[in-house]
Amino acid sequence: MELSEVVDFFDTYLRVNEFKEDAVNGLQVEGEEEVEKIVFCVDASMESFVRALEAEANMVFCHHGLIWGGIRRVDGILRKRLKFLLENELSLYSAHLPLDAHREVGNNACLLRLIEVEPEEPFGEYKGYKIGYAGYCDKEFEEILEVLEENFENIGYLKFGKDKVEKVAAISGRGAFAIDEAKRNNVDLLITGEMEHSAYHLAKDNEINVIFIGHYQSETLGLKKLVNLARSELGIEAEFIDIPTGL
Amino acid sequence: MELSEVVDFFDTYLRVNEFKEDAVNGLQVEGEEEVEKIVFCVDASMESFVRALEAEANMVFCHHGLIWGGIRRVDGILRKRLKFLLENELSLYSAHLPLDAHREVGNNACLLRLIEVEPEEPFGEYKGYKIGYAGYCDKEFEEILEVLEENFENIGYLKFGKDKVEKVAAISGRGAFAIDEAKRNNVDLLITGEMEHSAYHLAKDNEINVIFIGHYQSETLGLKKLVNLARSELGIEAEFIDIPTGL
Amino acid sequence: MELSEVVDFFDTYLRVNEFKEDAVNGLQVEGEEEVEKIVFCVDASMESFVRALEAEANMVFCHHGLIWGGIRRVDGILRKRLKFLLENELSLYSAHLPLDAHREVGNNACLLRLIEVEPEEPFGEYKGYKIGYAGYCDKEFEEILEVLEENFENIGYLKFGKDKVEKVAAISGRGAFAIDEAKRNNVDLLITGEMEHSAYHLAKDNEINVIFIGHYQSETLGLKKLVNLARSELGIEAEFIDIPTGL
Amino acid sequence: MELSEVVDFFDTYLRVNEFKEDAVNGLQVEGEEEVEKIVFCVDASMESFVRALEAEANMVFCHHGLIWGGIRRVDGILRKRLKFLLENELSLYSAHLPLDAHREVGNNACLLRLIEVEPEEPFGEYKGYKIGYAGYCDKEFEEILEVLEENFENIGYLKFGKDKVEKVAAISGRGAFAIDEAKRNNVDLLITGEMEHSAYHLAKDNEINVIFIGHYQSETLGLKKLVNLARSELGIEAEFIDIPTGL
Amino acid sequence: MELSEVVDFFDTYLRVNEFKEDAVNGLQVEGEEEVEKIVFCVDASMESFVRALEAEANMVFCHHGLIWGGIRRVDGILRKRLKFLLENELSLYSAHLPLDAHREVGNNACLLRLIEVEPEEPFGEYKGYKIGYAGYCDKEFEEILEVLEENFENIGYLKFGKDKVEKVAAISGRGAFAIDEAKRNNVDLLITGEMEHSAYHLAKDNEINVIFIGHYQSETLGLKKLVNLARSELGIEAEFIDIPTGL
Amino acid sequence: MELSEVVDFFDTYLRVNEFKEDAVNGLQVEGEEEVEKIVFCVDASMESFVRALEAEANMVFCHHGLIWGGIRRVDGILRKRLKFLLENELSLYSAHLPLDAHREVGNNACLLRLIEVEPEEPFGEYKGYKIGYAGYCDKEFEEILEVLEENFENIGYLKFGKDKVEKVAAISGRGAFAIDEAKRNNVDLLITGEMEHSAYHLAKDNEINVIFIGHYQSETLGLKKLVNLARSELGIEAEFIDIPTGL
Repeated sequence: MELSEVVDFFDTYLRVNEFKEDAVNGLQVEGEEEVEKIVFCVDASMESFVRALEAEANMVFCHHGLIWGGIRRVDGILRKRLKFLLENELSLYSAHLPLDAHREVGNNACLLRLIEVEPEEPFGEYKGYKIGYAGYCDKEFEEILEVLEENFENIGYLKFGKDKVEKVAAISGRGAFAIDEAKRNNVDLLITGEMEHSAYHLAKDNEINVIFIGHYQSETLGLKKLVNLARSELGIEAEFIDIPTGL
Repeated sequence: MELSEVVDFFDTYLRVNEFKEDAVNGLQVEGEEEVEKIVFCVDASMESFVRALEAEANMVFCHHGLIWGGIRRVDGILRKRLKFLLENELSLYSAHLPLDAHREVGNNACLLRLIEVEPEEPFGEYKGYKIGYAGYCDKEFEEILEVLEENFENIGYLKFGKDKVEKVAAISGRGAFAIDEAKRNNVDLLITGEMEHSAYHLAKDNEINVIFIGHYQSETLGLKKLVNLARSELGIEAEFIDIPTGL
Repeated sequence: MELSEVVDFFDTYLRVNEFKEDAVNGLQVEGEEEVEKIVFCVDASMESFVRALEAEANMVFCHHGLIWGGIRRVDGILRKRLKFLLENELSLYSAHLPLDAHREVGNNACLLRLIEVEPEEPFGEYKGYKIGYAGYCDKEFEEILEVLEENFENIGYLKFGKDKVEKVAAISGRGAFAIDEAKRNNVDLLITGEMEHSAYHLAKDNEINVIFIGHYQSETLGLKKLVNLARSELGIEAEFIDIPTGL
Repeated sequence: MELSEVVDFFDTYLRVNEFKEDAVNGLQVEGEEEVEKIVFCVDASMESFVRALEAEANMVFCHHGLIWGGIRRVDGILRKRLKFLLENELSLYSAHLPLDAHREVGNNACLLRLIEVEPEEPFGEYKGYKIGYAGYCDKEFEEILEVLEENFENIGYLKFGKDKVEKVAAISGRGAFAIDEAKRNNVDLLITGEMEHSAYHLAKDNEINVIFIGHYQSETLGLKKLVNLARSELGIEAEFIDIPTGL
Repeated sequence: MELSEVVDFFDTYLRVNEFKEDAVNGLQVEGEEEVEKIVFCVDASMESFVRALEAEANMVFCHHGLIWGGIRRVDGILRKRLKFLLENELSLYSAHLPLDAHREVGNNACLLRLIEVEPEEPFGEYKGYKIGYAGYCDKEFEEILEVLEENFENIGYLKFGKDKVEKVAAISGRGAFAIDEAKRNNVDLLITGEMEHSAYHLAKDNEINVIFIGHYQSETLGLKKLVNLARSELGIEAEFIDIPTGL
Repeated sequence: MELSEVVDFFDTYLRVNEFKEDAVNGLQVEGEEEVEKIVFCVDASMESFVRALEAEANMVFCHHGLIWGGIRRVDGILRKRLKFLLENELSLYSAHLPLDAHREVGNNACLLRLIEVEPEEPFGEYKGYKIGYAGYCDKEFEEILEVLEENFENIGYLKFGKDKVEKVAAISGRGAFAIDEAKRNNVDLLITGEMEHSAYHLAKDNEINVIFIGHYQSETLGLKKLVNLARSELGIEAEFIDIPTGL
C-alpha cells in the first residue's frame, strides 16, 4: 500500500486537522513509498525504532512523536533518532490529542468501555479541546478499582469522595488538571494515567475520587484498537510493541 | 510587625519582581495588618489554612499559591479557601519560581548543598528563567543516592549514565523537562522531584542518570530555610507545617 | 430556587458565552446554594452589597462586576468587597456587554423604545461586538430631547446636526467612540450616556447631534426590565436598587 | 527654521521615542519645509487648523493628534482634516503621553507646581508608563480646592477622604483609573481632568478625595509652557489657541 | 454614479471582507461623491495619478494601493501621493489578494484560461488564503511556453521537471513560495510573475518546472477584466493604464 | 578541531544570539564530532551538499540554511537534504542576518569597501535589525557602476536620482524595502541584490538611484571573507563553493 494512502486513511479517520497543538499530528517523517507493515507504540524512542526494524515494519505509529512545536536544531538524541529513521526509510506517524479524544478508538472512550460505561459526554478541556469522556453508571468505587487492577499493574488512587459512583470520567496520560472540571460536572470518580503532586489537595478539597492507572498503560488502549483497524481496514500487517516505562 | 513590612522584606529578598509567570509571586491575599507569626508550607490548601489558624499564625507563606493566571470566578474550592482566609484575616504570600531559583534559600541551591556540591551555574531553563543550579564534584552515583535516601523517603531513579558523577544539577518539582539541557551541558546526574512518564526514554536515549526525590520533598528545603530567616531577620515567630502528598 | 438554575437561566437568556471581554460575564462569586431574592444594581460597590443584605437578598445582579481581566491580588477595596460577599454568602452575577447588546432587555433597545423608535439595526462596534442599536423615525430633535428630559435628570447635548431626525442610534455608558460610525451610517442623532471631552470636535466636524443622558441613568433600563423578568420567569423576588453616581 | 530641525528639537526634548502607544508621537503630517510660526492647541480639529492658518502658522502642535493606531482609510472627517493640512502645507506635530509625563513641561508636573507641590514621584501607570506625578504637602483640602477654582472653571469633586492633605497626585485628562494606585500609595487627594461614572464608587469605597478640573483645562498647562520654550529655545513665533470643549 | 454605490459594487463582487491582510482592500482614499470614470492600473504611483487626471477619471482602481498596515506618518512620497489625490478629489480603491484569488476576474484564473486550462482547485496558500488556482491538461511544456511568449515579453523559466504537463498552477506576482506546495500536489508546471533567487534550488531539488512571466504582466489580467465589468455592470467609463516596471 | 569549538567560534564572532528571526542562526544539523574542513556556500541545496562531500568537508557553512521557523514535517526535499547530511555526517551551520549585518565580514560592509566607501552608519531596518550600512563619498554614479560591473555580472539599475553620489547604502539580497529609509537619510544611491517590481515606483517617486548586483552575488562577499578567517583563526581547511542561481 502506498504511504500517501496510509497517511490519508489515518488523517481522515482520526480527524487530525481538527487539532491545533504543539505536537505535530499526522506524518512526521517520510520513509519508504510502499508500506507493508506498521508497528504501534506509545513513544518515539530508539528502542521503538530498533524493534520496528526487527519486526520488518516500514512505519512507526506512535502517540508521542518527535516533533513538538517545530524542530530548531537537529542534534543530540533527536539527531540519533532522525538519522535512524531516515537511514532505514522508516516513516513516523504520530497522533497525540486526536488519539486521546476519538470517540471509537480513543484512549478514554476505550477506558470507559473497559469498565462497562458508555462514553456519553466529551470531558476534560485541554488547550481548547475536550480530550476525554464522561459516562453514567451505578457502581461501587471498589468494584471499579477491582476491574482496573485486573487489567493494569501498579494502580494508585485518592479516595476522598463517595463510595457510590454514579458518574465517571476518563483522561489518559496526565489528567489531574481536570479535577476541578470533574467536580463542577458532578463526576464522582476520575480515572487518569499519571499520579502527580498537585492532584492530592485538589482531590481532597474537592472531595472527589481519583484512580491512577499509569501514564503508559492509559495510553496503550487506543493503539491496540488501531492495530485491529489497520489489519481490517487497510489489510496490512500490524503489531503493538510494548515498552513500558514504569510510570 | 506590619504586614506591608513583611511583604516588602520577602519581595526584596526573593526578588519576586524579576519573575513574570502565571503564578502570582508576592502577596496574594491581604489579611490582618499586624503579623505576629508566619507558617510556611508547600501548598495553599484547606489543611494548610486550618493548621495555620491552629498555630495562631497571621500569614501563610507557600510555594504553590491560589492564583494562577488571574481569578475569573470565585467558586468551588477557591471560594472555600478564599472565604476561610478572609474570614480569619489570614494573609497569603506565595513564592513560586523565585523560591526555586534563589541562590541562598532556593530549593535547588539547598538540594545541591545537601550532597556537598556548590551551586555554581544557573541551570534549567523554564519559561525564560534558569530555576535550578549545577555544580561539580567527584563522587560515585551510589554515594549520592545514599545521602539522598538518608534524607528523603520513596526515592526513585533511572540509572542510564556513568557510575562516576562529575557534574550534577538540581531542579525541584517536575524537572524532567531539563534532561536535554543536562545532556548538552555534560551533566552526569540530574536530581529532581517528580518522576514522570516522559523521563524514561529521554534519560535512556541520552544515557544520563536521574534521581527523583519526590515533588513535595524537593520543595520543602527552601521553605525550611525561610523559617530560620523569618526568625532571625524579622524577629517574628515562624514554623514549617508538614503536609506530605505522597508524591 | 437553586443557584445553578438561576445562573443557567441568565447565562442562556443573555447569551453571555457569545461575548469575550475583560469583564467576566456570568457568575463571579458563588454564594448560598438557595436563591430566594435577587437585587439588581448598576455597580458592584459596598453600598450595593450592604443594601442587598438589608433587602434580604441572596444574589446581587450588576452591570459592572468585580472582575476585570482576572484577579491577581485580593487586597484593598477588592478584599473588602469580596470578604463582605463571602461572609454573607451573597452571590454576585454580572452582565456587561450582554446587557448592553440584548435585543429585548438590553439598555440600548430599551432606550430607543422609550422614544418610540424600533431597534432595527445592530450598531456601535466595541471590541468586536455591536453593543447598541439604530432605528428610523420622523421627529424633531427638540421633540426627542423633551421626552428624554421627562425621564432623566441632568441631560447634556451637542447640537451640530440637522433639526430633523430620521435615524437615531443608542449606545449606553460611554458611547462617543461611535460618532464616526454614526456619521458613516447616516445617523442624525446619537443618544449615549456619558459626556466626554473627545466628543466635542468629533460631533462638530462630523456635523452630527449627540444627547448625553448620563452614564448611570443609561444603564438602569436593562436592569429594570430584568427585575420583571426574574419575577415572571423565575417566580422569585426581585428588586432594583438605585444608587446614582451623579454622572 | 527647517521643519526637520523643529521636529528633532521636540523629539529630543520630549523624548517621544520612549513611549510606544497607539497615538503617534512626533511628526504626523509633513508640511512646508520652512517653519516660521507654530500654534499650540489641545485637539487636532478643523477649528484648530483654520485658526492656525489665520494666525499664519506653518505648524500645529497638539496633544491629541489625528493618528491613533494607524490610518486604514482616508475618508469622512479625517479626509477633511488631512486635505486641509496638505493643501495649506501645514505640518502637524503631536505629543500625547510624552506631554503628560514630562518632568518639566508636563501637564501633571505643571498642575502640581500650580498648587505649590513639588512633583517628586512618578505616578499613574497607564499602558506601562507612569504619566503623572505625586508630591508631599501639608494643606487643607479646601485650601487646594480654592487655588484650583481661581485657575479653572466648572470644577467638580468627590470628598470621601480626609480634610488634611499630606500627599497629592495629578493625572491630566481621564485619570480616575488611578484611584486604586493612589490609595495603595497613601495619596490623600487625586487631581485629574475628566469626571467619570466609575470614579464614584472607587473613591467612596477607597475613602479618598478626587478633584476634577476638566479634561480640556487639565491638558492646556503643558502646551502653554511649550509656547514659551519654542520662543526662547527655537527663537520662533509661537501662540496658544484656546478652543474649550466644555469638559 | 455615487461613490458609495461603486464601492459597494466592488466590495461585494470581489468579496473584499473575506481577506484580512496588511493591505487595505476596498476604498483607501475618498474623493468626489460622483464617479463618472474609473482608471485601472497595477500600482498607486504618481505617474498613475497624473495619468488618471489626464484621463478625466474620478477614481483610481489599483492592485497595489497606498496603505499597508496603517499609516503612521504622512510624509515623503506618501504625502506627495496623498496630497495629489486629495487636492484633485480622486478616489483610490485597492484590491490586493481579492483580485489574485477571484474565480472569475482573478489574475490567476485568467492566466490559466489564457493557456486553455480550467481553474479547478484553489492553490497557493499565502497568509492563510489560497490566492491562485491549479488545473489539469495534456500539453507539452514547450507548447505552453509558446502561448505565453506570444502574450508577454521577457519571459524566464526553470526547466527542471517533465516535458509533459498534466497539471499546471498559477500564482501572480511573486509566487515562488508555492513551489513546495506545487510538488506536494503533483503540479508539473508553476506559472508565476517574478523570478527570484530562492526559486532556483527549490525548483531544482523538487524537479519541477517554473515559468516567470513578470510581476507586472502577471497582475494586469484581472484589472483588464474589471475594465469590461465596470463598463457593462456599472455603465461607467473605464480604462486600463499601462505603466510597466520592467519586471 | 572539535565541532563544538568551531560552533562556539562562529557563534561568538558573528554574535548569532543577538538576532531573533525565523531562520535558525548557528548549528542547524550536527554531524561528525571532528571538523577538518569547512565549505562555504550561499544556499543549503543538494548540489552544495554533494560538492561538500566531494571536497571531503565535514561541515557546510551557508547563508540560507534549511530551517525557517521550525520543522513541522520531514518530507519532500527537506527529507532528501536532511538524509544526505545525516548519512554523511555533514554538519550544517547557517548565518543569515548575522552575516548581512556584521561590521567586518558582513556582506554589506564588504560591498561598500569594494567601492572604497567606509561603512559608517548601520542602515536598513529589517525585522527590528539594521542589516546593512551607509557611508559617505564624493563620486559619480557612473564611476561606481563601473567598479561594480567589473566585479559582478548582469547588473541592473534605476537611475532616478542625482549624478553625484555623496552618500551610499548597501543591503544584500532583496533590499528594495529600504528605499524609503534611504530617502529619509539622504542616501543618493542604494546598492542591493535582487531587482523587484515594487522598487520601480518607489525609486521613481523618491527620485533616488538604485543598483542591483544580483541576489546571489551580493551574498557571496561575506562568505569569501569567512573562508580566510576559518583558515587563519581556526587553522582549518576552508573553501568557497560557487553555485550561481542566475539571479
